[in-house]
Amino acid sequence: MLETRVFVTKKPKLRNPICIVGLPGIGNIGRIAVGYMVHELKAKKFAELYSPYFFPFVMIHNNMIHTLRNEFYYCKTKKRDIILLIGDCQTYDPKGHYEVVGKILDFLKTFGCKAVITVGGFGTGRVSEKPKVYGAATNSDIIKDYKKYGINFDISGQIGTIVGASGLLVGLARSYGMEGMVLLGETTGFPIITDPTAAEAVLRILEKILKIKIDLTKIDEKVKAMHDFIKRLEDVQKQAISQMKKRDKPEELKYIG
Amino acid sequence: MLETRVFVTKKPKLRNPICIVGLPGIGNIGRIAVGYMVHELKAKKFAELYSPYFFPFVMIHNNMIHTLRNEFYYCKTKKRDIILLIGDCQTYDPKGHYEVVGKILDFLKTFGCKAVITVGGFGTGRVSEKPKVYGAATNSDIIKDYKKYGINFDISGQIGTIVGASGLLVGLARSYGMEGMVLLGETTGFPIITDPTAAEAVLRILEKILKIKIDLTKIDEKVKAMHDFIKRLEDVQKQAISQMKKRDKPEELKYIG
Amino acid sequence: MLETRVFVTKKPKLRNPICIVGLPGIGNIGRIAVGYMVHELKAKKFAELYSPYFFPFVMIHNNMIHTLRNEFYYCKTKKRDIILLIGDCQTYDPKGHYEVVGKILDFLKTFGCKAVITVGGFGTGRVSEKPKVYGAATNSDIIKDYKKYGINFDISGQIGTIVGASGLLVGLARSYGMEGMVLLGETTGFPIITDPTAAEAVLRILEKILKIKIDLTKIDEKVKAMHDFIKRLEDVQKQAISQMKKRDKPEELKYIG
Amino acid sequence: MLETRVFVTKKPKLRNPICIVGLPGIGNIGRIAVGYMVHELKAKKFAELYSPYFFPFVMIHNNMIHTLRNEFYYCKTKKRDIILLIGDCQTYDPKGHYEVVGKILDFLKTFGCKAVITVGGFGTGRVSEKPKVYGAATNSDIIKDYKKYGINFDISGQIGTIVGASGLLVGLARSYGMEGMVLLGETTGFPIITDPTAAEAVLRILEKILKIKIDLTKIDEKVKAMHDFIKRLEDVQKQAISQMKKRDKPEELKYIG
Repeated sequence: MLETRVFVTKKPKLRNPICIVGLPGIGNIGRIAVGYMVHELKAKKFAELYSPYFFPFVMIHNNMIHTLRNEFYYCKTKKRDIILLIGDCQTYDPKGHYEVVGKILDFLKTFGCKAVITVGGFGTGRVSEKPKVYGAATNSDIIKDYKKYGINFDISGQIGTIVGASGLLVGLARSYGMEGMVLLGETTGFPIITDPTAAEAVLRILEKILKIKIDLTKIDEKVKAMHDFIKRLEDVQKQAISQMKKRDKPEELKYIG
Repeated sequence: MLETRVFVTKKPKLRNPICIVGLPGIGNIGRIAVGYMVHELKAKKFAELYSPYFFPFVMIHNNMIHTLRNEFYYCKTKKRDIILLIGDCQTYDPKGHYEVVGKILDFLKTFGCKAVITVGGFGTGRVSEKPKVYGAATNSDIIKDYKKYGINFDISGQIGTIVGASGLLVGLARSYGMEGMVLLGETTGFPIITDPTAAEAVLRILEKILKIKIDLTKIDEKVKAMHDFIKRLEDVQKQAISQMKKRDKPEELKYIG
Repeated sequence: MLETRVFVTKKPKLRNPICIVGLPGIGNIGRIAVGYMVHELKAKKFAELYSPYFFPFVMIHNNMIHTLRNEFYYCKTKKRDIILLIGDCQTYDPKGHYEVVGKILDFLKTFGCKAVITVGGFGTGRVSEKPKVYGAATNSDIIKDYKKYGINFDISGQIGTIVGASGLLVGLARSYGMEGMVLLGETTGFPIITDPTAAEAVLRILEKILKIKIDLTKIDEKVKAMHDFIKRLEDVQKQAISQMKKRDKPEELKYIG
Repeated sequence: MLETRVFVTKKPKLRNPICIVGLPGIGNIGRIAVGYMVHELKAKKFAELYSPYFFPFVMIHNNMIHTLRNEFYYCKTKKRDIILLIGDCQTYDPKGHYEVVGKILDFLKTFGCKAVITVGGFGTGRVSEKPKVYGAATNSDIIKDYKKYGINFDISGQIGTIVGASGLLVGLARSYGMEGMVLLGETTGFPIITDPTAAEAVLRILEKILKIKIDLTKIDEKVKAMHDFIKRLEDVQKQAISQMKKRDKPEELKYIG
């Protein structure tokens, strides 16, 4: 694989689709919020994305080999169809973020997708019982349209940069003929691995934007179930980063299987 | 995005265009001189360049998402048309400089552009009230043509190398069928972020080369307005460099949004 | 060479081929097991793979230049044809593993290959007189089919990740239209360079899977013969890693020949 | 420039050409030996190679901009035509060696070139008044053919690896349909920048192989003339390596021109 590739298993016809993206990040808010949507909306997987910029190992999970990937799901709603993108990981390499993001946007375009909302976390260092949801967009129309849903768009001074695919997917969307927004759930930041409360706050907003109902009663239970796998993913990636650092040490040729 | 891309918003017809390039660098002289030209000459944007070798984050600026980019503007003058290229950043990776430079030269060629002048700074460590402007060219004809404008071409011994896109754009121009020159405004170097005096000195030279008038009365004021954004750009990139260094530390998976 | 390339010397017609892969790794179990098969089955070489992600040097071996490579062999058996892939090295770069693996899978596909078994080692830290063979697969059918041969598929909790090409070849196989399995011979791990006992255990399993006979009486002797070359390979690569670390030191421009 | 490129200025017709390569390396023996041949044989330049894997700066030399490059020359002799390849530098990146070497071999092939001899140095740590010339080849026929010229092919145990383009050009030649040999002049190694005595020893051998006469009376004088430029090349590259190390320090954004 010379470059990031999307392997398509089926090609659904989608009506005016909007893509909701939940990749790992601060508090894994995007990952668990959109992962929960996949379960609750009974979304169907139709493509997988692999990248040379993901870590070069496979995980053993439930006695089987699991290869790091991002996954595209879709579900149909009354108003419009939804593409849900979740992932095991982001790339470990700065250049990789651009490659993966470009591949995703190109792929979304083939379905006539015109809008992308990425979900992430914003670590404040404080514990908040009613976490706010912040929004960052590429044009003021989006802000006008969505302000009424309780998104806090007044973010200058609070949020300086959004690092990784969640920011770039929106930041490059317009060049690919789409519009986009980042939704950031307020969370404490370190060292919480998953923050279901912030994920829930974001889901409440997404319900309004997408004009759908998401039953949130099972979120704690589902997040608990996801938690172990996400924790293992983080652990092996941390391990991999350590090993890559040691890669430069001669004796470390041997960690390869 | 697998490689650096130029997204063209309109394709103007240009008459014998010359490209003036102002990218960030020592004293940001190129950035502010050419940025000022864009304002004063009321140049129109017609293309944006994004690169996987720019930092993988978006900035929040005035409550909106700003993605790192270089921008192409054009303006028409009596003598010839001018393409103005300014940018938020240069690439953080040595290989990236070549990629971006190749893309720029290829793009300029499609407009029949035959000449490129890049503007940069030369840090002397001294404060100079009347900063000199140094010139480096790829052939002696340019030196002969432009010496009369007060450019100091006697630079061996003073300037050893020109690092980054400003040097390479000119150094590779001939292989792409163009000629070029680097104009370096004398500046103290560290730690001045923007040096409007040196920028002004370069603009005085460019006026003569381009046979145009640039009203320089508003330069201090305009530079002050640009200053904040440039400072933020520098700050977030410095932050990003620090984070990329820490990227190899397992606990730092978490800085991703 | 911009990318990993397979240079084909002849293109054999192969009947329902299965590919057995033995690359360097823990205890070099794959490398010596599959290397031994090449000798014993009198397999014929038909292609060589070179990669920009292998170290950029040539070795002197028996007064001749040896360039780092992977090699494809084939042999015909009653039941089905076998492609044997052995190599001097894996890539030193994480991204390289994906590139090499993609090239291998693309190449295997052109022969109608539908199955790939990679052989590696699993370092337990214990000495075991009768080393177990562990298996990891991408789907439960393989486990059902092969369990009877004495492979231990109950690996969760014992094996967390499989790093490098052996894991990825199987992990990505399905996306390329193949099925796969990793066979891991139990070995002590450090600091044994070659572990013929574990290799023998894996070969006993492969005999059953492939329905062939492999005369194992000469394995110790053959491994001894291979040992020197493998040791030199490891030594020069360790040296190269040290030199690449020092590459950033100015004085080290000079190690280049 | 996304990849290494050869810019061809004229396309000579060449009769059974052999390519002699002199790139910078230990004692710069190849660089000065082949550089001297270019002068003495009045060879004509017909192509230049630039690479994203060369350092991203231009040098100021004699008040002009000099961009790092390799250069192809040719000259016609009674027996066969000769392509001479000399260069300012090798790539700073391991992957780059493969890319540059592949581009060179592809380019040579377009001229029907079937043989390549690279010239390098072998640092022994000893001063030798009559330096030996060592040879490393990819097949035994070359050894048989050239042994009579006084090349020492008995190198196992003395030379372990040949790092960089000189080794790889020969190591990969066969896969590109060529044969090749590395000629290594014995030299002390550190810290001599140029070793004309070893270069002379190699030239004596090349005279015999190529059946030409090279007037060696001016070599000391010519090497002295080349010395300054080579020393500056080395100095700026060492500087660049230092700066690239510091690149990761936030304050070092500023060294860019």
